[in-house]
Amino acid sequence: MPSQWSYRDELLRVIDEVVAPGAAEVDASGTFPRKQVDALGAAGLLALTVPAEFGGAGAGLREAADVIRELGSACGSTAMVVTMHYAAVAALTAAGDKETLTAIAGGGHLSTLALSEQGSRSHFWAPMSTAVPLGDGRTVRLDASKSWVTSAGHADSYVWSSRPLGEAGAGPMTLWLVPAGAPGLSVTGTFDGLGLRGNASAPMTADGVTVPLSAMLGADGAGLDLALAAVLPVFLICSAAMSAGLLRRLADETAAHLGQTRLEHLGVSLAQQTLPRAQLARLRIEADRTWALVAETLSAVEAGREDAQLLVLEVKAAAGEAAADAADLALKAGGGAAFRKESVVERLFRDSRAARVMAPTTDALYDFVGRALLGLPLLGDA
Amino acid sequence: MPSQWSYRDELLRVIDEVVAPGAAEVDASGTFPRKQVDALGAAGLLALTVPAEFGGAGAGLREAADVIRELGSACGSTAMVVTMHYAAVAALTAAGDKETLTAIAGGGHLSTLALSEQGSRSHFWAPMSTAVPLGDGRTVRLDASKSWVTSAGHADSYVWSSRPLGEAGAGPMTLWLVPAGAPGLSVTGTFDGLGLRGNASAPMTADGVTVPLSAMLGADGAGLDLALAAVLPVFLICSAAMSAGLLRRLADETAAHLGQTRLEHLGVSLAQQTLPRAQLARLRIEADRTWALVAETLSAVEAGREDAQLLVLEVKAAAGEAAADAADLALKAGGGAAFRKESVVERLFRDSRAARVMAPTTDALYDFVGRALLGLPLLGDA
Amino acid sequence: MPSQWSYRDELLRVIDEVVAPGAAEVDASGTFPRKQVDALGAAGLLALTVPAEFGGAGAGLREAADVIRELGSACGSTAMVVTMHYAAVAALTAAGDKETLTAIAGGGHLSTLALSEQGSRSHFWAPMSTAVPLGDGRTVRLDASKSWVTSAGHADSYVWSSRPLGEAGAGPMTLWLVPAGAPGLSVTGTFDGLGLRGNASAPMTADGVTVPLSAMLGADGAGLDLALAAVLPVFLICSAAMSAGLLRRLADETAAHLGQTRLEHLGVSLAQQTLPRAQLARLRIEADRTWALVAETLSAVEAGREDAQLLVLEVKAAAGEAAADAADLALKAGGGAAFRKESVVERLFRDSRAARVMAPTTDALYDFVGRALLGLPLLGDA
Amino acid sequence: MPSQWSYRDELLRVIDEVVAPGAAEVDASGTFPRKQVDALGAAGLLALTVPAEFGGAGAGLREAADVIRELGSACGSTAMVVTMHYAAVAALTAAGDKETLTAIAGGGHLSTLALSEQGSRSHFWAPMSTAVPLGDGRTVRLDASKSWVTSAGHADSYVWSSRPLGEAGAGPMTLWLVPAGAPGLSVTGTFDGLGLRGNASAPMTADGVTVPLSAMLGADGAGLDLALAAVLPVFLICSAAMSAGLLRRLADETAAHLGQTRLEHLGVSLAQQTLPRAQLARLRIEADRTWALVAETLSAVEAGREDAQLLVLEVKAAAGEAAADAADLALKAGGGAAFRKESVVERLFRDSRAARVMAPTTDALYDFVGRALLGLPLLGDA
Repeated sequence: MPSQWSYRDELLRVIDEVVAPGAAEVDASGTFPRKQVDALGAAGLLALTVPAEFGGAGAGLREAADVIRELGSACGSTAMVVTMHYAAVAALTAAGDKETLTAIAGGGHLSTLALSEQGSRSHFWAPMSTAVPLGDGRTVRLDASKSWVTSAGHADSYVWSSRPLGEAGAGPMTLWLVPAGAPGLSVTGTFDGLGLRGNASAPMTADGVTVPLSAMLGADGAGLDLALAAVLPVFLICSAAMSAGLLRRLADETAAHLGQTRLEHLGVSLAQQTLPRAQLARLRIEADRTWALVAETLSAVEAGREDAQLLVLEVKAAAGEAAADAADLALKAGGGAAFRKESVVERLFRDSRAARVMAPTTDALYDFVGRALLGLPLLGDA
Repeated sequence: MPSQWSYRDELLRVIDEVVAPGAAEVDASGTFPRKQVDALGAAGLLALTVPAEFGGAGAGLREAADVIRELGSACGSTAMVVTMHYAAVAALTAAGDKETLTAIAGGGHLSTLALSEQGSRSHFWAPMSTAVPLGDGRTVRLDASKSWVTSAGHADSYVWSSRPLGEAGAGPMTLWLVPAGAPGLSVTGTFDGLGLRGNASAPMTADGVTVPLSAMLGADGAGLDLALAAVLPVFLICSAAMSAGLLRRLADETAAHLGQTRLEHLGVSLAQQTLPRAQLARLRIEADRTWALVAETLSAVEAGREDAQLLVLEVKAAAGEAAADAADLALKAGGGAAFRKESVVERLFRDSRAARVMAPTTDALYDFVGRALLGLPLLGDA
Repeated sequence: MPSQWSYRDELLRVIDEVVAPGAAEVDASGTFPRKQVDALGAAGLLALTVPAEFGGAGAGLREAADVIRELGSACGSTAMVVTMHYAAVAALTAAGDKETLTAIAGGGHLSTLALSEQGSRSHFWAPMSTAVPLGDGRTVRLDASKSWVTSAGHADSYVWSSRPLGEAGAGPMTLWLVPAGAPGLSVTGTFDGLGLRGNASAPMTADGVTVPLSAMLGADGAGLDLALAAVLPVFLICSAAMSAGLLRRLADETAAHLGQTRLEHLGVSLAQQTLPRAQLARLRIEADRTWALVAETLSAVEAGREDAQLLVLEVKAAAGEAAADAADLALKAGGGAAFRKESVVERLFRDSRAARVMAPTTDALYDFVGRALLGLPLLGDA
Repeated sequence: MPSQWSYRDELLRVIDEVVAPGAAEVDASGTFPRKQVDALGAAGLLALTVPAEFGGAGAGLREAADVIRELGSACGSTAMVVTMHYAAVAALTAAGDKETLTAIAGGGHLSTLALSEQGSRSHFWAPMSTAVPLGDGRTVRLDASKSWVTSAGHADSYVWSSRPLGEAGAGPMTLWLVPAGAPGLSVTGTFDGLGLRGNASAPMTADGVTVPLSAMLGADGAGLDLALAAVLPVFLICSAAMSAGLLRRLADETAAHLGQTRLEHLGVSLAQQTLPRAQLARLRIEADRTWALVAETLSAVEAGREDAQLLVLEVKAAAGEAAADAADLALKAGGGAAFRKESVVERLFRDSRAARVMAPTTDALYDFVGRALLGLPLLGDA
């Protein structure tokens, strides 16, 4: 990185030149934002959180969240693709995968997570897929039916979960890095959904994929611990930041609409009506409340505060629900205009429903938060 | 009509054979449900509420609402097209337009409303468009920018509002019947929206359209009274019935999803989980509450009860908001599956937001209801 | 009953003369509405649903719901006391307890339910209390810690649950009629709560209470079936009717407040402001939606419709939640005035939270409804 | 103040020894928390925000908010009394009233606001009360009907609004400091309300009260500017902090309840049930979201950020609505136990409705926020 490099300047430039202009088309056609990801990579933003020792910018979670918030207000699909990349980088960093991190630092490598599965659905902590050691002592065979892999078929590598290799005493999950193009790895569907239509969140199958033993990230059976400690905070906070960006954009669009739209027979603009003003106010308050909780969570994590884990578990649920609820206010205040595809509101409204269903879902997070407050194990029977 | 004709049997047959199979395509392509409307016409359902003296089935509001509820659970776009047709029939009946009613009774004529305008937006009670008598004493020139005309370009006639012809003493609005194909009448946009994507709700322009004076529906200046007394109850009750049908379908789809979907790692179906069950229950309760209010409103109207007008003003607002709120429950309970276009839930969720923004909007109706309860005029300054 | 007796005339007279004037004092002091119950008894209203063969008015659930709705708009505590009485009458009728029913028909006997327990809390279907046959073959010993008995210490008899007498093959619960004043029966606390402050919902203890075997209502072990089939519909529908009455009263009070209160510096009344009008409208809509569902449920029960059981399970949950939500609108629209004890709104707001926590609670009913829709047993493990 | 004085240590001690033990009694009897205020004064906490030059602790808004949050979780009435005192101190500080500030620094002087009026209700920005110069050029006559004065009859001084003294060109409001005991000043009612029952929020009348001209705070006619710039931020932020404290306490109480309460027939505690855990999670999330917005607002104010005013206008509305909504979750999760006056939840639930109705109300603040976002004047016609 050049010493005077400012990630924010680069980010705003790439959004302005590439991400924002392409957002409507990504949504309409449901195509992966290839050009957008390439531009972000070229600008150094895929390397933002890669440690400096591997050639990255060495930035932290606060900067990552800031990037995702800005992307979230411009193009949700791009924001989600980058969120998953940052989450994967966190796994690679925790596991010390020098080679891949160095590739990412170079700007041309996109990674992602491949955790959720057909069988256990959004319960990513309970993989049903397998890893079996081959006779040679150096390679492993992976078989899986992954259900929702963001950037499926477009990423250069996948942080992949399976049941542990070993039998006794190991934890419930092992993580692997699976390269794109591995024989036996295939994308087995396409994504045609309500929102985030360009994030290529498709099912993938591993049918006898062979990876070297060295592709294991962390220790055998320790994958859940690694996921919870390193990956989950990045995913949860960035997902919340995306919702915050979306909400802020909705508030801005709504204010513009109210200011511009006139009731000609009354000779007034919508801005001069009490009810739309109140809807705008509530929308902006939700945007600000959502970002305030992200900011508080980042402060707690950075300071190692006692309540950091609790806030991390709260932040995506809070933001995802706020986004879903408040996007409705934008749709109401925007009336018929917001209902049409010419309006950004229509797209953001659909995007607003996505965060809730991504694992861990809101309901799963409520259960984690409740358990944490009650002193129960996060993943338990009752 | 054959004497043993049962509108319900015909309706369920047409839905089964034509409406339901075509619903996904109507939504995906955003095309007008031509085949569906033709089939309903051929089956006598467009003539359902035409008085028997003009050759119709002479059915009432209860049967109309029943038709719309069933259509609403199969294809929202078709339901809305027929809702507007029934509302237009009510205007024609009140005005005694024998010729058009006879044509509708024949099964091959679709009508609709053209009330809302670019200038006054959803305030349909305040038209800015004009009707000017031509010198001959027999014809009138209409000029208008209509904003949201359901079935625009597909209907055979339009119940059309303008400022009154005369100047002094007349009320604020006059209604006309404008035939499709009148010179100067054009559809000036297409509809590409979040939901009800096939209802062809597009702007239309009248640029010097000439109609005979006899095209006037009711007296000059009396159009608002006619709209409030005859048209509004049909539109509001049918719109609510559509929401009730949508909600019921969402509950049925959600129950099916919970019963079929398994968490393989736990060996249970979603039906065996507490939270999805509660979401299903709340969804079904909203469906039943919504239909119960429609039924109560119909009873009040039929019995000429004192609270009939109040309930008519309440029913679309109540149903539209319930549909929007409860559709979210279906999206939550359906998880990733409901988020995909393969699922009916995804389409119904988008459709669920449409009723609220159609004039009179929820906020306008809340104001009417509040005014009625407070003894204030429905349309006033404060 | 005199042949021209009209329960409605009597009801409105008693409300006017006794119930309404005493409501504020019942709430303020938290005392049981003795005078009110006596007046209702003298007017024949406690005998309303007693079959004519036992000297009652032989009215049905519709009339009972109507009584409770009217009482609910005047005095929630009285409404709940009578609700429990009607539920007890249903049990006595199903079991054919001629003696008690005849006493109730006489006007001087109040009954109630004693089902919920300290141990199993709101899960009334799982009693922990016991019934043990004494050696004489004619008498039974009852021991229990009941948790919330409405009219505790004021009723003349209690419909009482215990584990079954016999061991093998019997169902989980047996019902008994326990007379007030039985040795060993005591009220072990007082009720000082948020709302329904006069309903004397207190814990009771049976410490070796002896009743004759003939006090058994229905067969041994069949108490749950009897409760579900006969008692629950009455309780659920009447509880919902109470919420409907409360909501209607809140709407009426709010309309009166908006009409009377002026903003002197603006020279307008609150009725001329958009936001309070919208709050009033939403409140009245909830009142009407709630009553519409009660009416629909009554129709379904009377006609023996297939969906009758489902609607019965829905109606209290729907009404209780609507009351809680909408009472907040009255509090908002009423501003500082509604916040003070001089206002009826303040009392009704507190009362509005009671229905939800009474067994079966909203959450229990959501589970029942979900199970019914999914074809699962109502009371099961998962 | 002793140099090692820590306001937090003193605060927690006073809460522990005086405020918390007396809270239930303050609520039950509706009496002013005299002992609590005296203890806070003696501990230096009434002098917390008095500038050091007048002998106070010279602390800022952050410390004031922290005090109110802690008080809000222990005793809402005390928290509101101190909130109004801190708001009055801000007015006195802006106006440079050395004498009163010095008295407050001494610990024995409680001040408050007297702004809202019978005529203009919660629109405190439009006083109808008058200030008339007496002939002597040194004294002024005040006449007013104040509607809701916190600490009425208990405060030592009142920051008082009137119409301006002069006629032309002055702003709409002038502020005064009126001492307790001034002839003609009287408390004309008592407060018996739903919540915050000890805050003595009663109407007061000034009937020819005479004050010296030097009692004017700021310039004639500049009272609204002073109120908006100095008083409003303190009141709004402290009010929000009170709601945050209340929410946190409700979450703590709910967690304790779920951990302690067992379903004996199932052999589990409520903590082991999914639904109560989810309710607890949502409650705690609202508590944390609320405090996060307070913290963000404080940061914005301290840094002089551009969005500081907007956040100040948002924070009480956001917190007041969150408190009202989430307190319901505590009531649900707490079941019958939370419904009884033995439970702190019952009191906090009632207190949770108070912030919304205090001027500026939620609806007024929504309008201010909407106007700020739309570039309209805060106080305008449309």
